[in-house]
Amino acid sequence: MGNMLEIGARVLAEQPFSRLLGAELVEFTPTTAVLRVPIRAELKQQHGFVHGGVVSYLADNALTYAGGAALGTAVVTSEYKINYVRPAIGEALIARASVVHAGRTQAVCRCDVYVSADGEEKLCATALGTIARLGQAADGARELEREG
Amino acid sequence: MGNMLEIGARVLAEQPFSRLLGAELVEFTPTTAVLRVPIRAELKQQHGFVHGGVVSYLADNALTYAGGAALGTAVVTSEYKINYVRPAIGEALIARASVVHAGRTQAVCRCDVYVSADGEEKLCATALGTIARLGQAADGARELEREG
Amino acid sequence: MGNMLEIGARVLAEQPFSRLLGAELVEFTPTTAVLRVPIRAELKQQHGFVHGGVVSYLADNALTYAGGAALGTAVVTSEYKINYVRPAIGEALIARASVVHAGRTQAVCRCDVYVSADGEEKLCATALGTIARLGQAADGARELEREG
Amino acid sequence: MGNMLEIGARVLAEQPFSRLLGAELVEFTPTTAVLRVPIRAELKQQHGFVHGGVVSYLADNALTYAGGAALGTAVVTSEYKINYVRPAIGEALIARASVVHAGRTQAVCRCDVYVSADGEEKLCATALGTIARLGQAADGARELEREG
Repeated sequence: MGNMLEIGARVLAEQPFSRLLGAELVEFTPTTAVLRVPIRAELKQQHGFVHGGVVSYLADNALTYAGGAALGTAVVTSEYKINYVRPAIGEALIARASVVHAGRTQAVCRCDVYVSADGEEKLCATALGTIARLGQAADGARELEREG
Repeated sequence: MGNMLEIGARVLAEQPFSRLLGAELVEFTPTTAVLRVPIRAELKQQHGFVHGGVVSYLADNALTYAGGAALGTAVVTSEYKINYVRPAIGEALIARASVVHAGRTQAVCRCDVYVSADGEEKLCATALGTIARLGQAADGARELEREG
Repeated sequence: MGNMLEIGARVLAEQPFSRLLGAELVEFTPTTAVLRVPIRAELKQQHGFVHGGVVSYLADNALTYAGGAALGTAVVTSEYKINYVRPAIGEALIARASVVHAGRTQAVCRCDVYVSADGEEKLCATALGTIARLGQAADGARELEREG
Repeated sequence: MGNMLEIGARVLAEQPFSRLLGAELVEFTPTTAVLRVPIRAELKQQHGFVHGGVVSYLADNALTYAGGAALGTAVVTSEYKINYVRPAIGEALIARASVVHAGRTQAVCRCDVYVSADGEEKLCATALGTIARLGQAADGARELEREG
């Protein structure tokens, strides 16, 4: 497990956008992934809440990690859906993703995103999506071959 | 129209996260919104493509603009779904959102996200979501009153 | 609780389409709903599995029941997303829905649909959606007033 | 084209559930599919509208047809999302699906569902989903091999 977390954290560190957002991989097991983003002014929208785009990014990335763990290979998010249920105001966002079902080429995963404030965690969004082996997404393979 | 674009651009400039990502409002009418993000290294993931989180952010924000134009008031994205269909490699992302149906308190909008490369635009994602008047989302109103 | 189940079952019996499909309300609490459909030949598609439309119907209806219990009023499904993970082959479909978050006018609910075969239950689909008070959906209210 | 419509109609006639609902394939091209269901009492819910499950069924099936045409093989709906925008009251439901993007193993399709009443068509729902080659869905292949 420790090793899995290290490998996962290294991949995250290789994502420039994840570094820009300050994301950290907190937990990573064969069926779950937990990502965290400390909230700072740059991540907000005009009303002072965390921008939905940050919440989406975190849900998407946590889904991908959970699916990648289940499929045991390089993966991409094929699609997902997110419901925002509460404005994110607090110190950090925490996305907890888990595998609902893993097949041969795809995994269906869900993710709850919480905001922690004053030592308490509140749900701010929930997501459901499909993670696919690289080359099995909508047309990842074909496009990559063509453009690579 | 010109005025609408100006007002919309001002709101975008008030979103620290949109400034961090470098988003621009290119077009804004009562039923459509077009947002653009020039692609730079910081917005990528480990394979050199634009991170899905950036694509999601742009789709989400374009949906919100389209819905806001239709509802004519302050709005939030209530929920949306996105399908990624091609890795985003190129010079800029362009999200084109339009209103599918506008009701009294909510609007259903769709958005196609393109990547422009060598003067050509290719579809890289498509999204569908619900935009709600502020205070009509899952429990936006209640929470805001409570926490405000 | 017993009373709640009775009331819920009566509503289901008033839905001609639910009678056509043979749906039964098995459990109904303030935060959960369980619906069941015995599988019969008429509910299948050409490969002998239960048609996806039946699985969708059951997930949609279970989401509505869970949301209705949470909101305590007449509700409609505003939107939902479903991922099919396994062909449904067996004796009955069972949809288990629960409330993820309830606000003032909307509730976000999730639902897992299982197929029971030889005394075993297997997940065949999972769904996530928004249930709205009647009159708060996309434009339910407006349209109903206009057409009523 | 005529031949394509005939073949598609034959497949529909082989789906017992589609016969139960009275669905007809009206149009079928390499990138579009139109399905129709005449509205009758048995397809309604307790308020006299067409049950959401029927609308979902029709959207799902139209998406599958459009995706199948694009992929040119046996397919299944992997996942989809639907937004209901208006209660369906009228003489018939018409679902118009088209291909947004087709890859090697999957196609992303969208579908608008209309209700026709007094010679006029009104949008009542919109959907977006992924259609996969049989054996490329979440774990269709694995399960079918195992259970077949």
